[in-house]
Amino acid sequence: MTEKAGFPQARTILQQCLHARLQVTPESDQSGAEWVEINRGMVIYICFFKGAVEDIIPKIVNTLLNLKLCEADSGKYVSVLDLPGSVLIVPQATLGGKAKGKGMQYHNNIGKDEGLQLYSSFVSMCEKELASCTSDTKHIVKHGTYGNRQVLKLDTNGPYTHLMEF
Amino acid sequence: MTEKAGFPQARTILQQCLHARLQVTPESDQSGAEWVEINRGMVIYICFFKGAVEDIIPKIVNTLLNLKLCEADSGKYVSVLDLPGSVLIVPQATLGGKAKGKGMQYHNNIGKDEGLQLYSSFVSMCEKELASCTSDTKHIVKHGTYGNRQVLKLDTNGPYTHLMEF
Repeated sequence: MTEKAGFPQARTILQQCLHARLQVTPESDQSGAEWVEINRGMVIYICFFKGAVEDIIPKIVNTLLNLKLCEADSGKYVSVLDLPGSVLIVPQATLGGKAKGKGMQYHNNIGKDEGLQLYSSFVSMCEKELASCTSDTKHIVKHGTYGNRQVLKLDTNGPYTHLMEF
Repeated sequence: MTEKAGFPQARTILQQCLHARLQVTPESDQSGAEWVEINRGMVIYICFFKGAVEDIIPKIVNTLLNLKLCEADSGKYVSVLDLPGSVLIVPQATLGGKAKGKGMQYHNNIGKDEGLQLYSSFVSMCEKELASCTSDTKHIVKHGTYGNRQVLKLDTNGPYTHLMEF
């Protein structure tokens, strides 16, 4: 991993979980809310900045899925692919916020259409990587709906929170 | 809030919660685990870097408690003091991590004794600020045990995750 100069293209926060549950469709008159969930694995909160391009996606996926951030039963840290664990991806535009006075501004965040495109690529590539590394259908990628409120319930054995920028 | 040049003294991650529960003493042969919990309010994960000094604490406390990060019932964003809400402080040294290859290194983190000192000051000042702003004993500051594993359970209506560095 090389040091990046200048403004990043993406910001991610990583947390380890025993169980995580995320709303993907809010409740409506017609039906109840829909949720996705994972058991043991990693929650990835992601936000893209202005200037982010498709080329950055493989690097983000490769880095996050291979970083030794997950505590194995042995107590050693291994990657989420090696755990093996599941991944919950949470689009989190607020991560791009900057304080101005007492309020937050999001002027550096990427536009909604471009952001959705990059988010979709990121999700697809995570799914492909996880599928190619395990034949075990227990280890899955789940993800939030871009642009929705990310109603999240998280159960950890220590979130072991990390920040990674790209 | 002015732009900071150079390496920060502290990194914080802020998440909004409906309920959060944090282990402060692990289970032992003699007794069960002890937990603290808050209802609606803000979770502050904090990490200090080498070079952090006591002078930075009032600025961090003042900024975090007054930033408009909490969604009021009206849908408007207000500070945790104005909500009013509670605060759960989680010491999180992993936030200082930097990837080297597939592993994480924490060379820029402050030493344990100095870190504990700064953490304790931060907790005390948050407690004082919250107490001076509300006579309501429902709105409290709870905090994790520095150096322990931070076993956390979080229930949100959207974590609205923000990064703030000082």
